[in-house]
Amino acid sequence: MSKTDAVLKAADAGLQLSLDLLFQFLSIPSISTDPAYKPECRRAAQWASDQLSEIGFTSRVADTSGHPMVLAHRRPANAQRHVLFYGHYDVQPPEPLDLWQTPPFEPRIETGPRGERIVARGASDDKGQLFTFLEAARAWIAEAGELPVAVTVLLEGEEESGSPSLKPFFDANKEELRADLALVCDTGQWDPETPAITTRLRGLVGEEVTISTAGRDLHSGMYGGPALNPIRVLTGLLSALHDDSGRVTVPGFYDGVAELPEAISRQWSGLGFDDASFLGEAGLTPGVAGEKGRSVLEQIWARPTCEINGIHGGYTGEGFKTVIPAQASAKISFRLVGKQDPAKVRSAFREFLKARLPEGATIAFREHGASAAIELEADSPALALAAQGLQQEWGKEPILMGSGGSIPIVGAFRSELGMPTLMIGFAQDDDRIHSPNEKYDLKAFHKGIRSWVRILGNLGEWR
Amino acid sequence: MSKTDAVLKAADAGLQLSLDLLFQFLSIPSISTDPAYKPECRRAAQWASDQLSEIGFTSRVADTSGHPMVLAHRRPANAQRHVLFYGHYDVQPPEPLDLWQTPPFEPRIETGPRGERIVARGASDDKGQLFTFLEAARAWIAEAGELPVAVTVLLEGEEESGSPSLKPFFDANKEELRADLALVCDTGQWDPETPAITTRLRGLVGEEVTISTAGRDLHSGMYGGPALNPIRVLTGLLSALHDDSGRVTVPGFYDGVAELPEAISRQWSGLGFDDASFLGEAGLTPGVAGEKGRSVLEQIWARPTCEINGIHGGYTGEGFKTVIPAQASAKISFRLVGKQDPAKVRSAFREFLKARLPEGATIAFREHGASAAIELEADSPALALAAQGLQQEWGKEPILMGSGGSIPIVGAFRSELGMPTLMIGFAQDDDRIHSPNEKYDLKAFHKGIRSWVRILGNLGEWR
Repeated sequence: MSKTDAVLKAADAGLQLSLDLLFQFLSIPSISTDPAYKPECRRAAQWASDQLSEIGFTSRVADTSGHPMVLAHRRPANAQRHVLFYGHYDVQPPEPLDLWQTPPFEPRIETGPRGERIVARGASDDKGQLFTFLEAARAWIAEAGELPVAVTVLLEGEEESGSPSLKPFFDANKEELRADLALVCDTGQWDPETPAITTRLRGLVGEEVTISTAGRDLHSGMYGGPALNPIRVLTGLLSALHDDSGRVTVPGFYDGVAELPEAISRQWSGLGFDDASFLGEAGLTPGVAGEKGRSVLEQIWARPTCEINGIHGGYTGEGFKTVIPAQASAKISFRLVGKQDPAKVRSAFREFLKARLPEGATIAFREHGASAAIELEADSPALALAAQGLQQEWGKEPILMGSGGSIPIVGAFRSELGMPTLMIGFAQDDDRIHSPNEKYDLKAFHKGIRSWVRILGNLGEWR
Repeated sequence: MSKTDAVLKAADAGLQLSLDLLFQFLSIPSISTDPAYKPECRRAAQWASDQLSEIGFTSRVADTSGHPMVLAHRRPANAQRHVLFYGHYDVQPPEPLDLWQTPPFEPRIETGPRGERIVARGASDDKGQLFTFLEAARAWIAEAGELPVAVTVLLEGEEESGSPSLKPFFDANKEELRADLALVCDTGQWDPETPAITTRLRGLVGEEVTISTAGRDLHSGMYGGPALNPIRVLTGLLSALHDDSGRVTVPGFYDGVAELPEAISRQWSGLGFDDASFLGEAGLTPGVAGEKGRSVLEQIWARPTCEINGIHGGYTGEGFKTVIPAQASAKISFRLVGKQDPAKVRSAFREFLKARLPEGATIAFREHGASAAIELEADSPALALAAQGLQQEWGKEPILMGSGGSIPIVGAFRSELGMPTLMIGFAQDDDRIHSPNEKYDLKAFHKGIRSWVRILGNLGEWR
């Protein structure tokens, strides 16, 4: 039996223990966007650091001005290569709570159409995913006595809130973080039977806009007519952001966006992706949104967007209140591709709104994060070794795909440390991440651990 | 000395006693919206009913499913006519408490720029106002032995919380409430020296709209592009409700809206109303909103509007969440004038949105009340007799003005009992109703009592 086979056997034998530990982790409500959960974020960090120590890493919880980082190392004497594994221990807020079938921080196993699955906030994004790597490392050390490569583990607690501490932490710990390759486990499979390596990520610009028109909330009977209504101003401005063909109207927005190369376009068409079932699963109607004349895969992997992620103004409780509010606000995000410059997109957006602002209204902006898009080279040896590991585990070539979401850390690895990143994860399209009843397939968890056992083994051969 | 002059003299002599009683009334924190104050609401009702008994009415506290009504009658044998007086004993919550110079339910007299004034929650709205009528009735009965007309008094305890019990109470007590004329003392003077009768009230149609596009909230990275965003659908629909000239675009909306008669238009222009200071006091910029080419008074008294009173969708908490929500909703109200039909406005609005709804979205509506506009005929004998009483007291013709808001009771008097209403009150623009340090000028209280003494006397001549 090869070393890798023995480690796989050990991982299989320890699966129930791995799951028990994951349940402990999922029970901690580490909601990073809500200041009320600050102590819970620290508790999750400490818990993860303790686990890394138990596995055999030298680990610490490192303070930042926000939620702490977990930073752990294990450097075998004979290792040729060094990888940095990144994950995040924070989770999205669970609201709306009434749509959860069971409480979001009381993990449980349920049976879904494809078998058993883990249900909890963070089950997939990202506690379940990052745990596949930790358990693979645990199996290697426990069974083979050592890891095949040197490993640094970095776990962040602000991924769901724009990672404000990441850049300062990178600047302060650059040498400690440097490795040959970064591994990120925050992406999905192609389908439940087919692994994937994500090589493209969209970037992100987040903005919050507040319109003010009056000194206080006003009674719509007394002032309705001559009072400028900030909700009306806001809806007018936001409705101007797209044209009838679904394109964003902000001048210069498409600068740096290239058309998809013919070869990639052909490859993606050949994937047999079913637009209708992908959208239908989410309750969406196909063909009614996005830029006209582009496939769903092109729209989410290779085209930029502008979305209103939140809007609020006036009275929104039960019943009715005839108020003209003093203010109204919205949260807007742009997904970026290719060479779009986040700073230029932000300033073009602000200019666009300012130019349309009616007299009598003022506008204020607040920045919520920025990251450029990523496209990875397809011919690196590490990519080939990782792809081989996935092929061994799943009996299928992994798909080299894109992802609509942003993983800001990947941009930082590249810009701050000059490191390439392999994004490998085992999430499924129906995992309901950021939604009620988030889940992670038990099979994905198990085969995810096994995939990392193989990938770590193969990377040991990287010279 | 005429009978009325004798009663006026008696009212003057009793002013200090009237004020002492009002202070007792103002000391009861009858906050109808807060369930914690339910016993205080009942205490206020009982106190007012006891006062009406003492004055000489047959009075009772009548239970409803909410706060009780006070219902009192006095029917002189020789009275030709019968009036129904309406007021409300409940008050707005006093918050924010830290902005009150003295506790809101410890009434006091302070000296303001125009003389002494009564400071307390409810001093103006509506305890002080309704007490002017009660004290006039007291003076008539005490001095002249009888009222000049039959009087029914109805005091409500839910005016500040939407009057949910009013309609059932009307239905159950229709015959007991029927009279020739209703008098409502919940409005203001034109200015501190000039009385007014409000003859126009705008109507109201309230609607709640919910747009749905997906089966659940979605991640804007994974779905941004092909997912139809309900906030974008909603902002698009709402931004189509007005044209560039500030007019509402819903077809048929202006049916039943007449241009202001030249005479009234001239009268209003002559009032010396200062648009800039009225709007400026609320932090608004003049000349930037409402239908172009119309004065502020015309806009708020005689023109219909469409306002967005609330909007909500997606993530609106601290920080940022890159969600595409499944739903977004808004609360919208229309102020109506003239003969606009609330039911037709509601259905035209719904058709307007449905016709513009993009494929892939569904829309749901929820009704939040409806009332037609009120315009009292300017040539009724009762109006002339009341106007004459105000003229006698103030030495000035009362202004026949409009009010931008709705007073639902007035619509109910007309629709349920076929009764016209005279709205006469002595509040000032600076009374701070619904705000901290609410006050009522002592002069308004005193001359308010005297005005009602004269109006009651004059109505005794109504044949």
